Amino acid sequence: MSPSRKNLIALLTDFGPRGQHYVASMKGTILSINLDCRILDISHNLTSYSIIEGAYLLSTTYQYFPRGTIFVVVVDPGVGSTREIVALKTKSEFYFVGPDNGVFTPILEGEELEKCIRVENVKYFKEPISNTFHGRDIMAPVGAHLSKGVSLAKFGPAVAPKDLTTHSLTLEIKSETKEITCCVQFVDSFGNITTNVALDSSYSFGDFTHIRGTNILLKEGSSVEMIKDNQEYSAPIVSHFAEASKGTLVALRGSNNFLEFSLNQGNAAEYLGLTVGDVFNIQLSE
Amino acid sequence: MSPSRKNLIALLTDFGPRGQHYVASMKGTILSINLDCRILDISHNLTSYSIIEGAYLLSTTYQYFPRGTIFVVVVDPGVGSTREIVALKTKSEFYFVGPDNGVFTPILEGEELEKCIRVENVKYFKEPISNTFHGRDIMAPVGAHLSKGVSLAKFGPAVAPKDLTTHSLTLEIKSETKEITCCVQFVDSFGNITTNVALDSSYSFGDFTHIRGTNILLKEGSSVEMIKDNQEYSAPIVSHFAEASKGTLVALRGSNNFLEFSLNQGNAAEYLGLTVGDVFNIQLSE
Amino acid sequence: MSPSRKNLIALLTDFGPRGQHYVASMKGTILSINLDCRILDISHNLTSYSIIEGAYLLSTTYQYFPRGTIFVVVVDPGVGSTREIVALKTKSEFYFVGPDNGVFTPILEGEELEKCIRVENVKYFKEPISNTFHGRDIMAPVGAHLSKGVSLAKFGPAVAPKDLTTHSLTLEIKSETKEITCCVQFVDSFGNITTNVALDSSYSFGDFTHIRGTNILLKEGSSVEMIKDNQEYSAPIVSHFAEASKGTLVALRGSNNFLEFSLNQGNAAEYLGLTVGDVFNIQLSE
Repeated sequence: MSPSRKNLIALLTDFGPRGQHYVASMKGTILSINLDCRILDISHNLTSYSIIEGAYLLSTTYQYFPRGTIFVVVVDPGVGSTREIVALKTKSEFYFVGPDNGVFTPILEGEELEKCIRVENVKYFKEPISNTFHGRDIMAPVGAHLSKGVSLAKFGPAVAPKDLTTHSLTLEIKSETKEITCCVQFVDSFGNITTNVALDSSYSFGDFTHIRGTNILLKEGSSVEMIKDNQEYSAPIVSHFAEASKGTLVALRGSNNFLEFSLNQGNAAEYLGLTVGDVFNIQLSE
Repeated sequence: MSPSRKNLIALLTDFGPRGQHYVASMKGTILSINLDCRILDISHNLTSYSIIEGAYLLSTTYQYFPRGTIFVVVVDPGVGSTREIVALKTKSEFYFVGPDNGVFTPILEGEELEKCIRVENVKYFKEPISNTFHGRDIMAPVGAHLSKGVSLAKFGPAVAPKDLTTHSLTLEIKSETKEITCCVQFVDSFGNITTNVALDSSYSFGDFTHIRGTNILLKEGSSVEMIKDNQEYSAPIVSHFAEASKGTLVALRGSNNFLEFSLNQGNAAEYLGLTVGDVFNIQLSE
Repeated sequence: MSPSRKNLIALLTDFGPRGQHYVASMKGTILSINLDCRILDISHNLTSYSIIEGAYLLSTTYQYFPRGTIFVVVVDPGVGSTREIVALKTKSEFYFVGPDNGVFTPILEGEELEKCIRVENVKYFKEPISNTFHGRDIMAPVGAHLSKGVSLAKFGPAVAPKDLTTHSLTLEIKSETKEITCCVQFVDSFGNITTNVALDSSYSFGDFTHIRGTNILLKEGSSVEMIKDNQEYSAPIVSHFAEASKGTLVALRGSNNFLEFSLNQGNAAEYLGLTVGDVFNIQLSE
């Protein structure tokens, strides 16, 4: 028999390379509750405590998974404090378990919720509950019980989605002057910088695209200007890395449909001195 | 049918981020012997050659896994030398395969063994056997054959547990003066320092705990003093990170019930200049 | 029922620690097509864009996996350009999907192909297809459909193996003088340097071996001389790390049967200032 779609649990944490064993103890805990579970990793290497980055990685990844997948998210700088733990089910049939600290912001913005509860029922926790690792003692067991078919309502009282914590990212777009103030959502291993400027995702063969919700066109051949630390940069808009010569800064539509900056075969983030959360201004050429 | 509990193999190595493919060749070897096996990672990022750290990670993780799990441990600075390879089964039904170099010390201290053998039977090895990678050529295949139900006795002769290699960590506790000499067992990605001072694990809501086996109380509100490089540090005892303001050094009970030092949203290990194996003195306040 | 051998997909990418979520979106894509698939990681931490290293890791790992395993390789500096994507099946029943950029060179040299096609049929892609992430949108779905039993011919037209891109590594061996010009194929987390000097793989208890295809003997007790930056180094030939004292540079047969240089419990690559792709000269002692 094919494994049930509810048997997939995907983990996202900020435990880092030195914290693999924390992930392992979560996986062991899950398998001790539901041995049929299959567990995948979204990432464990995001910037420590970065809710912005956690939200970005989750929101650009979950939709590639089968419906029914349960996402357990442990980016939890407030562990042990009064922050709540929540569990959500979207109408599109994805499940999310994690701290109510804003990490689910893009899910709440992009999906309709079928149900949302506050996790409170200690019956589904793994006791004794530590003060510093609710990922292992609360969130992993809740995810595992969910995967066994326990309904969301069993874990705690309903919460109105509007009462959940959200965060907002700086984004100002002046359509007339084509000036944009935006921020860095993510920097990958290659140093590619992902902004929060969403682009139209229609299939366009890469030669042009709109900034989502505007009439501003990004067209191959034109360029994006940027000032950083009194240095001016100009990045031609290209459709893929290979188009630029080695060492050239380029702007392009990233694989998640946000405006990205890349240094072909180099590290754009180091080159520009930008890191996650940084706000900066760009200007599209006429 | 539910997968058998003997089908779980968990791997712990020091191969590092650049050695993922070594892990992969172990996994391929296991699956070539038992395609039904499920393989999980404890960690592959521990400090190279660090038996102390390997022992710590193993001992704080294995009990979260289902009974029957087989742990294959490749922290093996002596590979190719005369060090033996052993396989253990605990009365609690966990299996361990790895070099006899002390990495199983806390297992031997904390569990009763049902059986313990020296791995010698080349019939269960993958030939040709390299001189530098017994993880792939001996330990992985032995783990895989174990998962298929081959009994421990088939792999080699029995060994008395007392003849296994163990190591001991510096730990001196003076109950009257509350002075403690201890060492660093682990530093995680956040820079949290885990000592070898074991705390009472009873569920205490975090507000107080004893140092295990003593009458020394750790109470929220009191503090731990430390001298390092002629600099004096005072760390208030808290029950969770969020209680301390950003950048404050705190002492707390870690999620594995050892005394830990943390710098809230900072890196305590860098701040104090401490690394795995370092011995240092602390003094509890009256 | 035992899982089918065609259900195993192994991934090799250069996405790095900060790109785990890219791997996750490939895995989600695969499971959305074939939920029964089992997915393993070869490595995701190879040097960015390094086709040499990707080829090395693939060629030294794949043969440990069960027949029928499908290897999806995303080391793809030319993504979005005119480079082709290919899929191969070897007579030994391994499958490979990836860019035609030389990363399959050692497979083409070491295996006979049963079939080789150019991936073109968009029916098996995941639309919309980004310009920067064919791993997720083309290679992962093709691997997943292969695992469901779709035959290679469905994905595109046949290609002659001789028309595939290959690369060659510097290797000159002068048998009379025992001088060798070779290059670095890989450096692992320990700093061990793997050259491209292949050694005879017969089981020899480590005390001697031949350089493959020559009559040059590497014998324990003799040594390898090297000049680097006007500094001369002499590395005794040993059969395993533990034989050398701490901090000694040694030459030995690595676990993949290439000549390796190691600094016992140290980092040979840093010590010698060598990195992947570097060409250097060695001289075997008489």
